[in-house]
Amino acid sequence: MRGKLYGIGVGVGNPNQLTLKAINTLKKLDVVVVPEAKKDEGSTAYSIVKDYLKEGVEVIFMEFPMLKNPNDRIESRKTNTQLIEKILNSGKDIGFLTIGDPMTYSTYIYILENIDSKVRVETIAGISSFADISSRLNIPLVIGDESLKIVSLNSKVDIKKEIETADNIVFMKISRDFERLKLALIETGNINNVVLVENAGKEKQKIFYEIEKLEQKDIHYFSTMILKKGGMEQWKRSIS
Amino acid sequence: MRGKLYGIGVGVGNPNQLTLKAINTLKKLDVVVVPEAKKDEGSTAYSIVKDYLKEGVEVIFMEFPMLKNPNDRIESRKTNTQLIEKILNSGKDIGFLTIGDPMTYSTYIYILENIDSKVRVETIAGISSFADISSRLNIPLVIGDESLKIVSLNSKVDIKKEIETADNIVFMKISRDFERLKLALIETGNINNVVLVENAGKEKQKIFYEIEKLEQKDIHYFSTMILKKGGMEQWKRSIS
Repeated sequence: MRGKLYGIGVGVGNPNQLTLKAINTLKKLDVVVVPEAKKDEGSTAYSIVKDYLKEGVEVIFMEFPMLKNPNDRIESRKTNTQLIEKILNSGKDIGFLTIGDPMTYSTYIYILENIDSKVRVETIAGISSFADISSRLNIPLVIGDESLKIVSLNSKVDIKKEIETADNIVFMKISRDFERLKLALIETGNINNVVLVENAGKEKQKIFYEIEKLEQKDIHYFSTMILKKGGMEQWKRSIS
Repeated sequence: MRGKLYGIGVGVGNPNQLTLKAINTLKKLDVVVVPEAKKDEGSTAYSIVKDYLKEGVEVIFMEFPMLKNPNDRIESRKTNTQLIEKILNSGKDIGFLTIGDPMTYSTYIYILENIDSKVRVETIAGISSFADISSRLNIPLVIGDESLKIVSLNSKVDIKKEIETADNIVFMKISRDFERLKLALIETGNINNVVLVENAGKEKQKIFYEIEKLEQKDIHYFSTMILKKGGMEQWKRSIS
């Protein structure tokens, strides 16, 4: 019988964020696919799950290169999907790992997009990076009737409009366009309503509530910002 | 020593969505507070965690009534917070449970809002309802440079504007204003870009891709909708 594909969210950086469902699935896999797109992603994901894999499991580190040409990216995803289908056809069950949640900005989605619609698929939710950060800092994402928006920052985003149309915003990938983000926060009166977290959950984690003095060159690749238009001050507390 | 307050996300409806961190915390609690706001919320949360609590743990079902007068609501939250502080002052550690994620539309946030800023607090992220639904259905929430918005539906929401300004939207509490939502989806050409899930994860779960024929009276209280403006058709697959 053809194998089954599991998309598994492994949380952010620590095995204790794995769910029981993820652990029970990891234990029975024949093959684990560890995607490598962002820096350190593969090794982090593998280090989270390695103690739960059965003996003799096959581990495949699979590259999803950030190719400039969109057609090349699409081709590379198709090639990776074909490799996965080939393994499934040999009767093996595959777990495809995702840092965070598999349905939130993951490479796993590119496999889902391309894979034969008759393949059996099961996706196992994980703690997303923004859920992790907000809990870690005791800062609510969204309350009552408020709205929450998740924005992946890039030069095409109309930042002021985003700020205007949501109560709370998580800005991901802020290193791509930090100066423009900072300016928009200043101009909309929100410069003190944010927290910036660098390397969330890692030993070298840094938290900034005062970001006005920060410049583009200070912004690490792994940085996320939460904006609370209702105010950030009241949520600042020491973390224990 | 004063006790510590843990806000614990327990996922949606099934113990296998608990994280290891949540389980390890549950095991050491002296007191568990189970909030009761929405229907069945308390009994569902308790049934998820009960096998992980230590013997002799004190379980408190705490009401957060949906009072019409905002001042009454605020007072009731303050009273509940005072009760929690009193228990903490007696040296006991408390776990406050949240269905889903504690930082996403939870009653736990009302405790955080009111509690003495010197109380030690630790929040443990959980799988949110929308993360659960998207994985359960193998439907991505957000991909590439897209944006994701979470909207709690009510009569004040400008639905068309929400649809205009995000690539993917999770509409929560859609039973509050379904007819207006349906009309906005029709008028913006998105009526076939949605999935509606009733009682997600429960035995009586229902999934609707064709919602045009549904009326207000058909919409269950526990219903959530995902809109993908890029199209829903390609993500439909049988669930295994």
